[in-house]
Amino acid sequence: MTKTLDEIAKFVNGKLICGRDDILISRISPSKDAKEGDISFIFDKHELKKISKTPLHASCIVLPEDIEGISCPKLIVENPKLAFARLLELFNPTTLPPQGIHPTAIIGKNAKIGEGVSIDAYVVIGDEVEIGKGVVIYPLTNIGNKVIVGQGSILHPGVVIYDKVKIGKRVIIHSQTVIGSDGFGYIKTGDVHYKIPQKGEVVIEDDVEIGAGVTIDRATLGITIIGQGTKIDNLVQIGHNVQIGKNCIIVAQVGISGSVTIENNVTMAGRSAVSDHVTVKENTILTAQAVVMKDVGPNEIVSGFPARPHQKEMKIKALIQKLPLLVEKITVLEKKVAELENK
Amino acid sequence: MTKTLDEIAKFVNGKLICGRDDILISRISPSKDAKEGDISFIFDKHELKKISKTPLHASCIVLPEDIEGISCPKLIVENPKLAFARLLELFNPTTLPPQGIHPTAIIGKNAKIGEGVSIDAYVVIGDEVEIGKGVVIYPLTNIGNKVIVGQGSILHPGVVIYDKVKIGKRVIIHSQTVIGSDGFGYIKTGDVHYKIPQKGEVVIEDDVEIGAGVTIDRATLGITIIGQGTKIDNLVQIGHNVQIGKNCIIVAQVGISGSVTIENNVTMAGRSAVSDHVTVKENTILTAQAVVMKDVGPNEIVSGFPARPHQKEMKIKALIQKLPLLVEKITVLEKKVAELENK
Amino acid sequence: MTKTLDEIAKFVNGKLICGRDDILISRISPSKDAKEGDISFIFDKHELKKISKTPLHASCIVLPEDIEGISCPKLIVENPKLAFARLLELFNPTTLPPQGIHPTAIIGKNAKIGEGVSIDAYVVIGDEVEIGKGVVIYPLTNIGNKVIVGQGSILHPGVVIYDKVKIGKRVIIHSQTVIGSDGFGYIKTGDVHYKIPQKGEVVIEDDVEIGAGVTIDRATLGITIIGQGTKIDNLVQIGHNVQIGKNCIIVAQVGISGSVTIENNVTMAGRSAVSDHVTVKENTILTAQAVVMKDVGPNEIVSGFPARPHQKEMKIKALIQKLPLLVEKITVLEKKVAELENK
Repeated sequence: MTKTLDEIAKFVNGKLICGRDDILISRISPSKDAKEGDISFIFDKHELKKISKTPLHASCIVLPEDIEGISCPKLIVENPKLAFARLLELFNPTTLPPQGIHPTAIIGKNAKIGEGVSIDAYVVIGDEVEIGKGVVIYPLTNIGNKVIVGQGSILHPGVVIYDKVKIGKRVIIHSQTVIGSDGFGYIKTGDVHYKIPQKGEVVIEDDVEIGAGVTIDRATLGITIIGQGTKIDNLVQIGHNVQIGKNCIIVAQVGISGSVTIENNVTMAGRSAVSDHVTVKENTILTAQAVVMKDVGPNEIVSGFPARPHQKEMKIKALIQKLPLLVEKITVLEKKVAELENK
Repeated sequence: MTKTLDEIAKFVNGKLICGRDDILISRISPSKDAKEGDISFIFDKHELKKISKTPLHASCIVLPEDIEGISCPKLIVENPKLAFARLLELFNPTTLPPQGIHPTAIIGKNAKIGEGVSIDAYVVIGDEVEIGKGVVIYPLTNIGNKVIVGQGSILHPGVVIYDKVKIGKRVIIHSQTVIGSDGFGYIKTGDVHYKIPQKGEVVIEDDVEIGAGVTIDRATLGITIIGQGTKIDNLVQIGHNVQIGKNCIIVAQVGISGSVTIENNVTMAGRSAVSDHVTVKENTILTAQAVVMKDVGPNEIVSGFPARPHQKEMKIKALIQKLPLLVEKITVLEKKVAELENK
Repeated sequence: MTKTLDEIAKFVNGKLICGRDDILISRISPSKDAKEGDISFIFDKHELKKISKTPLHASCIVLPEDIEGISCPKLIVENPKLAFARLLELFNPTTLPPQGIHPTAIIGKNAKIGEGVSIDAYVVIGDEVEIGKGVVIYPLTNIGNKVIVGQGSILHPGVVIYDKVKIGKRVIIHSQTVIGSDGFGYIKTGDVHYKIPQKGEVVIEDDVEIGAGVTIDRATLGITIIGQGTKIDNLVQIGHNVQIGKNCIIVAQVGISGSVTIENNVTMAGRSAVSDHVTVKENTILTAQAVVMKDVGPNEIVSGFPARPHQKEMKIKALIQKLPLLVEKITVLEKKVAELENK
């Protein structure tokens, strides 16, 4: 794959401000490793500082604005990260498996299979399933009865979807993820834990991406929902009856207990968690390891366990570091007061 | 599925105190969403408070006692949660896959397969395996050599059982769970970590339920045991040679290190953990995120890292919140003492 | 399997200092459970103390040196743990699945398959794959296109390897582990998270072992690397573009964010974590639950969140325990100072 700078500038809607537009580009490289034929990116001024000490050998640098001291040719774009993402796909196009249903795939009764699907080897699909147009299901995936998978969704190898789960359009699910397993609910009668049947459903809305090894439990009654455009990283646990809003970011190893509500545009950083029945209101950010025990937000940044406003937590963390000093101060004070009392 | 109130009252051993007993019920609903034909539940007085502000439209409310202000008909039962669980199954009966061995299932030599089993598509079962009566094994599951699966157990899709694991009766194992993988043991010789072979076994006793994405390692020598009636949530890690007692509750993302003993009736809340070789004695509760570093219990509630008695941890957490105030108090004291010294 | 003490002594290069060398041994047992015909181990003096109170019934005790009060026969070896590991394998030899390619295994175009491999039932292998000599691939495993698996590696059931991953020699990968899933990267444009394609690779070097349920993401651009001899426990998350050095130990539930560098011989205890773009220098130890937020090491032990030198963290944790006492001291001081001021 080779493109001229002119073609690239048009593709990303950018402005080539110096250098010949017929230079050929065949690869995207980190700026420090780039050679002739490569295009590199400087995403912001912060990165520029780190980079400015090393000479750059890329055939073109993409920048958010014309910055002095960067050698030509330069390509100015409004959002270099977006240009990076789009060019990365252009130079390394995804090859999907061939369309069609592999002869070893097993499909249940009364299934509706859309056009242009790719259902790969040893996929097992239940009864009364609907698979939308262009859906890609990689090998060794299991789809239960009465599941719906919307148009253009991609299920990577080894995914398990239990019965009656509804998956929207353009959803991506990575390997070993489980959707629709039983919520964790028991009633103690004597010493014995009696299982509460889990009879609800799971809805994954359009444009959601779910990482590898994620577990999303079905509702006891009602629905567990992952809202449109929400992105979930690896090894995340989502309990029964959880409601997640739109466009949330949920980083690896997060834990969300049963009946939690996460409103729109919430960010949960790595290994943060929320207690059961709690609501995280919109635009709230949980920093890494934050554990939310009661309703928070909207528009807040919270940290710590239990989570409190980030600035307060930072202040308290700093004071904890100073505890040895505080103890010393108290000892000095005790001595001085004793001396004063003696006088 | 439709039942009269009379049938329902008999089924849950309850007392219908007002309203006609021929009213037809076809669905269980949360009280706030319920409509005609639905039955709803109020589990305790705490919930009643939240609910009492909204009018209820269910055709029947199930309650632990006759409470004023709730409209008829009412059904009084000793344990509404248990009635809920039983009615949930009645109105939404589980459909298990058809009995029989799917033609694509592969079964090794000298296997003993009980009556009425359901072994689904692309299941792989090793040599000298015993599968009890009525066992259900969903698609794409792998069962190693010399494994025993007791009567009535259910293995959801994609489960992996390594060689020589023994699984009791009525055990439920959710998708992607791994039982019997190697414990994590090495000897450092120079810079190199030499693997200690893991030659022990795993025993899962009767009536255990294990969530999705759980990992349970085999013992180095001897046995890793999960005791009867213990319930394990998703993404839990259980190390080699761990001994877990009966009727424990182990919530999502818990980590149990090697050679830990968890006695009977222990509750480990979400993401709690136990260090290797430590014992958690019976009836102990680990609150969420508690990390037990030395033996605790019996009959204790512990919190924090390192875990200590819950009341003490709560007090300390409260004081940590007050650190800015303490610092201020010390500053004031220092000033006053300096003034006193000057006099 | 039965061996004489003489054969055993030669096998582990040890010295039998008392007892007949023709005694027959058929089993390895923990010293407290051992009976006639068993061999037991005392690994160090610490263990000896615990054991010395109970009489030992093993037919031979392996020790690091001749210790008084332990009954004959004794076998003295330089490293009892290493002798234990080697004898454990001798008495319980691993049985690998039979060589050959199972008729249900599906292998793509232009694959190079080495001699003596074992490719088991319902394994799916992509195009242009290279499988080295003697590789063992258990059932229901998926290997993408252009993957390389080095000589002697073992992939347990249900592993998923995405396209273009390179796996070295003698690598062991346990069930449900996913290698090469997409890194977690998005650009926010308006409310929408636009996916950054993940087009890099993953390299697993020789002699690595990876536990069950681990997720290792492919690089955005470039390579995610796990260095030679590194051992990874269960349910560990390794983000995109992470570089892990040689002979590291990474215990269960660890989380390593994107673009982290872990140098050689680092130990990450259970559930420790590292923030993105941070470097952990060689020979550093992260204790359990430590969260490293900025570069640490080399040759350091760090604890806590944020991680700081272990000794300092221990001191601070001890002071936190004493907070109620500090508050009391402040109250006493305030009273005394008030009294002094009144005078």
